[in-house]
Amino acid sequence: MNWRMAHRAGCLEPSTIREVLSLAERPGMISLAGGLPAADTFPVDIVGEATSRVLRETGRAALQYAGSEGFPPLREWVADRVRRKGIAASASDVLITTGSQQGLDLVAKILAEPGAPVAVESPTYLGALQALSPFEPEFVTVAGDESGPVPAAIADVRDARLLYLLANFQNPTGRCIPAERRRELAAALANTDVPLVEDDPYGDLWYDTEPAQPVSALLPGRSVYLGSFSKVLAPGLRLGYVVAPPAVYPKLLQAKQAADLHSSGFTQRIVYEVVKDGFLDHHVPEIRARYARHRDAMAAALARHLPPGCHWEVPTGGMYFWVEMPPGLDAAALLPEAVEAGVAFVPGSPFFAEGGHESTMRLSFVTVPPETIDVGVAALAGVIAAHLAPAHLAPAL
Amino acid sequence: MNWRMAHRAGCLEPSTIREVLSLAERPGMISLAGGLPAADTFPVDIVGEATSRVLRETGRAALQYAGSEGFPPLREWVADRVRRKGIAASASDVLITTGSQQGLDLVAKILAEPGAPVAVESPTYLGALQALSPFEPEFVTVAGDESGPVPAAIADVRDARLLYLLANFQNPTGRCIPAERRRELAAALANTDVPLVEDDPYGDLWYDTEPAQPVSALLPGRSVYLGSFSKVLAPGLRLGYVVAPPAVYPKLLQAKQAADLHSSGFTQRIVYEVVKDGFLDHHVPEIRARYARHRDAMAAALARHLPPGCHWEVPTGGMYFWVEMPPGLDAAALLPEAVEAGVAFVPGSPFFAEGGHESTMRLSFVTVPPETIDVGVAALAGVIAAHLAPAHLAPAL
Repeated sequence: MNWRMAHRAGCLEPSTIREVLSLAERPGMISLAGGLPAADTFPVDIVGEATSRVLRETGRAALQYAGSEGFPPLREWVADRVRRKGIAASASDVLITTGSQQGLDLVAKILAEPGAPVAVESPTYLGALQALSPFEPEFVTVAGDESGPVPAAIADVRDARLLYLLANFQNPTGRCIPAERRRELAAALANTDVPLVEDDPYGDLWYDTEPAQPVSALLPGRSVYLGSFSKVLAPGLRLGYVVAPPAVYPKLLQAKQAADLHSSGFTQRIVYEVVKDGFLDHHVPEIRARYARHRDAMAAALARHLPPGCHWEVPTGGMYFWVEMPPGLDAAALLPEAVEAGVAFVPGSPFFAEGGHESTMRLSFVTVPPETIDVGVAALAGVIAAHLAPAHLAPAL
Repeated sequence: MNWRMAHRAGCLEPSTIREVLSLAERPGMISLAGGLPAADTFPVDIVGEATSRVLRETGRAALQYAGSEGFPPLREWVADRVRRKGIAASASDVLITTGSQQGLDLVAKILAEPGAPVAVESPTYLGALQALSPFEPEFVTVAGDESGPVPAAIADVRDARLLYLLANFQNPTGRCIPAERRRELAAALANTDVPLVEDDPYGDLWYDTEPAQPVSALLPGRSVYLGSFSKVLAPGLRLGYVVAPPAVYPKLLQAKQAADLHSSGFTQRIVYEVVKDGFLDHHVPEIRARYARHRDAMAAALARHLPPGCHWEVPTGGMYFWVEMPPGLDAAALLPEAVEAGVAFVPGSPFFAEGGHESTMRLSFVTVPPETIDVGVAALAGVIAAHLAPAHLAPAL
């Protein structure tokens, strides 16, 4: 039989990162490739106690169908939390989603038009490109520098149906947009009809100073803000949220109903039981302290081992270093050798909507112990250095 | 700001059923409107024990990110279960989804093309219409009779990108397709390039005799089969599955990754712990026995109370009676009066892709106690009868 696929299905592509991750699962591999939080931080016992309470007190309701908007007390909690970040929101603006990835899918479904431009950073989160792609937008990149998108470049994307932005500790670059740049970007966006879609999975993972308010706080009624419980609690619960103004909330809600009716009321109630009395107020600082040690270990290892010509910034939060090797090196081509040498990473090119940038790579520092980070970076540095050795210094053999 | 929505967002509509359900939640209301299973059947303690084991034995893995395909042992279990229904499947054909509603969204995403026909029964499951609509197909209905779609009508929809079918105890009509008709439909479909998308949430809920094999069993390589844990275990866990042949599985998987990365590994492991040793083999018969009593109560109540001119069949499984009132009556128009009289139902018209059929209604029998069903049906019958009274018999006032 001839299966006729929709045109948009051709825009779905196998994730190269998934393929890397399967390599990275080999025994003994030092994987700097993952995008996973450290499982040691998951509060298994707390989740267990919360689950027992949920099942004991409201078991039948937790296991029944529930409202598409989400569990009302959890929506209230999210609204309160994002208000503390400066975003004017009430519970009625909050839609609980099956991870923030689903928030991207729903936003893409209602805003992305085939052939119409969607503005993204260059590079940007691969999963956002994957969520948007089947809706067949034309990706346009907004010019940026080390502080984020350049405000003057916003006028160049004024026809875009949305600007997708990770202001805090971006995946993949780790870059955090400074406060002044946020104000400039908000002012530039306010002169357009381009809504901001701000994805903030890493905002709580800061290691030096707390980031400025989300850009969404400066764009009331002009922004959709996405958050997640994956990085501060546990991704296996698959819960995130979208905060959206009344102009778009009803359509997002209808898209949610069509997509999966609602997110699990069981896991929503568990998460609410875990967070309602302030658990994250001491749990997240513990994660920060741990990840900061890992970040410092990778910063030291990169400085110690990487050959001259490689560039990186030390991220002030999040989970990733972004390394630019000298031009001419191809991270994807180096990967098999690195895997042979016992270390895996993610090539940077897939994070660019426009492709290219083969000499870049993303290194995650959160799951590998600090002493092992040093071993992994040393092995990676050896692979890079071997490709940098000038011909006249190459071994005679 | 002018929010520019995608064209497809205009195809999303508020669910009229959701509005009915909010009416139905009024205190004291006898709701025959719900599509919910009976919460009394949820095995709360068993879920609690399973959760404790999952957290104790594999807590960190359960709370971590996981593969998009689903938890491998659960995929094995599903493959074994659908093989027992006659569908040749291995674990590699199984994709775990966030409820079977997500299966519909993913199938729609990869198969439905704007403007291209998609074939549905008339009426059909409203949630499937909602999942398909934003992908902008042209709905075409396949002619049917009391046994299901008419085989000769398949040729009329040979350009359709898929045929969506509920063979077992259809929502909303309760109709179960007989074995002979299944064979005829499979033979007709095998002459086309129209893949079957078979949705089977109710197949295990039979009260008289077990239904014949799914139509998918007769169409290897030409069918996508959707199942759910919602009706046999608990919907709040939000787990279902798609069984798809290798020709489409990779695209479904990519769509799943884009949609929500993966379904909760925590709830997947819980469900696996619950079902792995045969729990459903005695649990589902208990649900069947209970729902059969409810079914019988509603059959008796309808026969006792409904005025002449109303038609219905007694369903042999599932959760619904489908009532056709005499032509000229409008179920949606009667609903406010019924709610005043203390009983809620779902008007039938939204289940028809082509609209119309205002004189139909769906009555759920599973959540209301049998004795209350009689009270509710009596109240409903009174409302209908008041509208049937010929003018010359109407009260003079």
